[in-house]
Amino acid sequence: MATDPFDRQTSDRNHETFDKHRALLDRAVAACRSRESWTAFPDSPSAHPGGAQAREQGEAAFERQLGRPFELDAPGVFAVQDDEVSPYTGEPLGISYPRAGADELFDAATEAWPRWRDASPATRTGLCLEICERIFLKNFEFAHAAMHTAGQSFGMSCTGSGTNALDRGVEAIAQAHAAMSRVPETARWSRRFGTTDVEMVKRYRLIPKGVAVVIACASFPAWNVYPALFASLATGNPVIVKPHPTSVLQMALAVRVCREVLAEAGFSPDLVGLAVDTVAEPVTKDLVRHPLTRIVDFTGSAAFGSWVEANAFPAVAYTETSGTNSVLVHSVGELQPVLRALAGSMCLFSAQMCTSPQNIYVPRGGVPTGDGVVSASDFADALAEAVKAISTVPKRAAAVMGAVQSGNTLRLQEEVIGLMAGRGRVVLEPASYIHPEYPGARTGGPLLVQVDVADHDLYGQERFGPIAFVIECDDADQALERAARDAREHGAITAFAYSTDESYLDRVEAAYAVAGAAVTCNLTGPMPLNFSAAYSDYHVTGLNPAGNASLTDDSFVAGRFRVTQSRRPA
Amino acid sequence: MATDPFDRQTSDRNHETFDKHRALLDRAVAACRSRESWTAFPDSPSAHPGGAQAREQGEAAFERQLGRPFELDAPGVFAVQDDEVSPYTGEPLGISYPRAGADELFDAATEAWPRWRDASPATRTGLCLEICERIFLKNFEFAHAAMHTAGQSFGMSCTGSGTNALDRGVEAIAQAHAAMSRVPETARWSRRFGTTDVEMVKRYRLIPKGVAVVIACASFPAWNVYPALFASLATGNPVIVKPHPTSVLQMALAVRVCREVLAEAGFSPDLVGLAVDTVAEPVTKDLVRHPLTRIVDFTGSAAFGSWVEANAFPAVAYTETSGTNSVLVHSVGELQPVLRALAGSMCLFSAQMCTSPQNIYVPRGGVPTGDGVVSASDFADALAEAVKAISTVPKRAAAVMGAVQSGNTLRLQEEVIGLMAGRGRVVLEPASYIHPEYPGARTGGPLLVQVDVADHDLYGQERFGPIAFVIECDDADQALERAARDAREHGAITAFAYSTDESYLDRVEAAYAVAGAAVTCNLTGPMPLNFSAAYSDYHVTGLNPAGNASLTDDSFVAGRFRVTQSRRPA
Repeated sequence: MATDPFDRQTSDRNHETFDKHRALLDRAVAACRSRESWTAFPDSPSAHPGGAQAREQGEAAFERQLGRPFELDAPGVFAVQDDEVSPYTGEPLGISYPRAGADELFDAATEAWPRWRDASPATRTGLCLEICERIFLKNFEFAHAAMHTAGQSFGMSCTGSGTNALDRGVEAIAQAHAAMSRVPETARWSRRFGTTDVEMVKRYRLIPKGVAVVIACASFPAWNVYPALFASLATGNPVIVKPHPTSVLQMALAVRVCREVLAEAGFSPDLVGLAVDTVAEPVTKDLVRHPLTRIVDFTGSAAFGSWVEANAFPAVAYTETSGTNSVLVHSVGELQPVLRALAGSMCLFSAQMCTSPQNIYVPRGGVPTGDGVVSASDFADALAEAVKAISTVPKRAAAVMGAVQSGNTLRLQEEVIGLMAGRGRVVLEPASYIHPEYPGARTGGPLLVQVDVADHDLYGQERFGPIAFVIECDDADQALERAARDAREHGAITAFAYSTDESYLDRVEAAYAVAGAAVTCNLTGPMPLNFSAAYSDYHVTGLNPAGNASLTDDSFVAGRFRVTQSRRPA
Repeated sequence: MATDPFDRQTSDRNHETFDKHRALLDRAVAACRSRESWTAFPDSPSAHPGGAQAREQGEAAFERQLGRPFELDAPGVFAVQDDEVSPYTGEPLGISYPRAGADELFDAATEAWPRWRDASPATRTGLCLEICERIFLKNFEFAHAAMHTAGQSFGMSCTGSGTNALDRGVEAIAQAHAAMSRVPETARWSRRFGTTDVEMVKRYRLIPKGVAVVIACASFPAWNVYPALFASLATGNPVIVKPHPTSVLQMALAVRVCREVLAEAGFSPDLVGLAVDTVAEPVTKDLVRHPLTRIVDFTGSAAFGSWVEANAFPAVAYTETSGTNSVLVHSVGELQPVLRALAGSMCLFSAQMCTSPQNIYVPRGGVPTGDGVVSASDFADALAEAVKAISTVPKRAAAVMGAVQSGNTLRLQEEVIGLMAGRGRVVLEPASYIHPEYPGARTGGPLLVQVDVADHDLYGQERFGPIAFVIECDDADQALERAARDAREHGAITAFAYSTDESYLDRVEAAYAVAGAAVTCNLTGPMPLNFSAAYSDYHVTGLNPAGNASLTDDSFVAGRFRVTQSRRPA
């Protein structure tokens, strides 16, 4: 039978680190197989291992960092990151980070690599888990960094960018562990050739591919960086993390924890490097095209993602971009819970998530409900009211919507309103709200417009941010056909459907399965529609232009290392 | 726990096919994990299920096919394949195959796809195994096809292109089965949001990527086509097989068996299509670049392989090309067994294999042996004698060397001799032999030349066919450095080393592990040096330019399908 690499005999003291986390890893592997609910990191602040004072300490650590150089003993020359401005205060963070050329970063990573490459999978996995736990200890400091770069609410910064993102990281470590464990360390093999029995002993080594570049997005970096970073690092590759220039701090903190843990364990900290650039002088293309790049993970726009996919060769690229997420409203029992669920999802982090719904299809003849048919216009108006119940109540808006990461997002709303001229109806004008704690925060309420299915030029592409379309269509089957086709052709990560007709939901599930969007049916209540659970929900399918990689399936980890073998007569 | 997709309830009658092969599949999966010796198909003709007359029947079937249209109810217009000429008889096979445009083939595959896509993994896996068994029943007919296109000896055609190739196919099916089995069909998930427990039921579907194109090489098509074909087909993708224009018949036979089995099971035979082109008007690039192509498997030259890797996007490409396989002679106990092993491997199928050794490094000061030091020149002369013991004895030569697939291979030998002018020494001039049964056969003995390590322009690239270099170097460590570097930079699939010094062999194994070549140490005796066993030996690592895919690791199968999910409140 296959040898478990974690049973491999070794004098490596880092096995202790692995043993410490073995139960956690076993539980994570089991959760990936059963896809039941599990988390390694409690969401509740009261359950944080740092105790009652952890939150204040985290905030204080963040405050201390503002306006100062970010301590990192890494290649590069320190320079203030002018692009990093808090969406909450409008003030620059004023932090200096080391800026290094691509060659410097690759040289450092390459020099650091051999010992890590040759370390046992157990050592590498154990240290990756240790990094996750250390990040969790600093969850509140990381959360303040997420808030003041991405613009997330404090609650989302602690969970979506904190505990949930770390769970996606542990999930990737677990899948990497499982994949590496499937290759035995040795085998004994015999076969008859002519009249002779030939017996061979064979050894199989797991060899990582080489330097991995992880390119983060501005609004939700942790959720994609952690899986990519740990999938590459656990399988033995050095990693260069390239945050978005407007959203560096949280990823810089993560890189620092990685470097600390690696150095403590006797490895070179340069196994995890930080590449910082500016909006004016971006370096991402240089990193992707660097001759030593072997792996690229990218999260960002569809346009840049396509460029990465087409230009990463000979590196392998794992991408997540964006798309036209849809909602199909066929028929409902009670309308209000559906509207509340949709409104909540449209408002959540001001729809700056790759899973936020955009295109809401309703039948031209109205939506059948338990209380009669609701016309498309009445549906749209009622949905606007449900949105306003969040977006115009500052305390709720602050908790749900947070701030807007980029001013450009608000301009995109204006652009759509301009394109509407002579067509459809603006149901809800976007309206900012005054944040109770940060009166200078850049905020923006959802724009809701009502259009016809014929107005495909308006809704047939991603309109990033809080922009939603109520789309009148002939019937729910036409809606499904249009939405599934847009998913296939223009990308989609999520889809949502409401129907009291089981056969319609069956058609919906079948169509989106082929179109490659995860579909959620008839969900109402307190769970956000677009909540995606590590260990259970596959995120992105790789079947449409919204990305070629999935968190976290076998193919996300299997190509990051290779097997080489040697054999000798026994 | 994860649901085994083979326990899925279904009324599908094709489950019977799967149940029939379940024991075989379980055994193959176990062999892939343990990497012990196992085969699903006995090599010995006496063990063939067709009985004593199977061999004659196979030959007769082949003879009947000559000069006639190849019966295949597939898209295309029948045309005689002028490029297909037997290396044994020099006569055209005169077989007509249907030729179809790329769009015709893709349209047929696409139309056939949905039912196969939606069939259970068990159905698909069962039918793939059924295809392998049917091919095995026709092993002798297939072997004659391999002989008279690839030029292999009859023995190798029955095993290397027959049983061993089918084992690599079953291996791919087993790995695909294992990968699909790791995704559960359903899960129940619950999590608290606020004060509410939300419970969801989730369904996970395995969705194949789309049309797969398999591009075969001329000299050993089955060994790579079967794994690629079955990895894609078992995971639900339609496949278009594109044989080399000089070597169509065996793959046409395989496609026909696929189509028969699929049609019998109620599926469209167009799930496996045949693309035939000519040397004058190749269609491979059209197939690779077709907008519906989602997967490309390629075996062939490094130059074309690089083109495929760079141009397949958005399709994913799995390639195997070629490289500079090396032999490091550091020190030996007995010299003669080593020379016999090397000579055997140099002669095997006239070194027209991607695993054949090419560059044999010996220390300038000679090879230490149990009987004293043997000078580099004496080593080269003794190796030439060992080669001649095979290549000049027609019966042995016929069994080991077979024929030469392409006349161009003999011209490459002349080219190397020309490049030698003023340098080194031609130790053994290539000499054809008269085949005992086919006096008109195109045969060619190995060319062996002695050069210096400085003559890198001669040996630092693949010289396809029976061309070997004895390379004098300062010492065995210089040899290792040069050879491992060539592997990294120019590709290598195999490497061989002979040493009585364990520490040298350790260095060899470590260096080739990183360079990505499988290394065999101190092997002598009846097993061919470059024998690669399905279920045990990984073939190609993906770490150097000799190819990006490995037979058969997780990454060879994991990217051929994706997971989509749907979820609803419980």
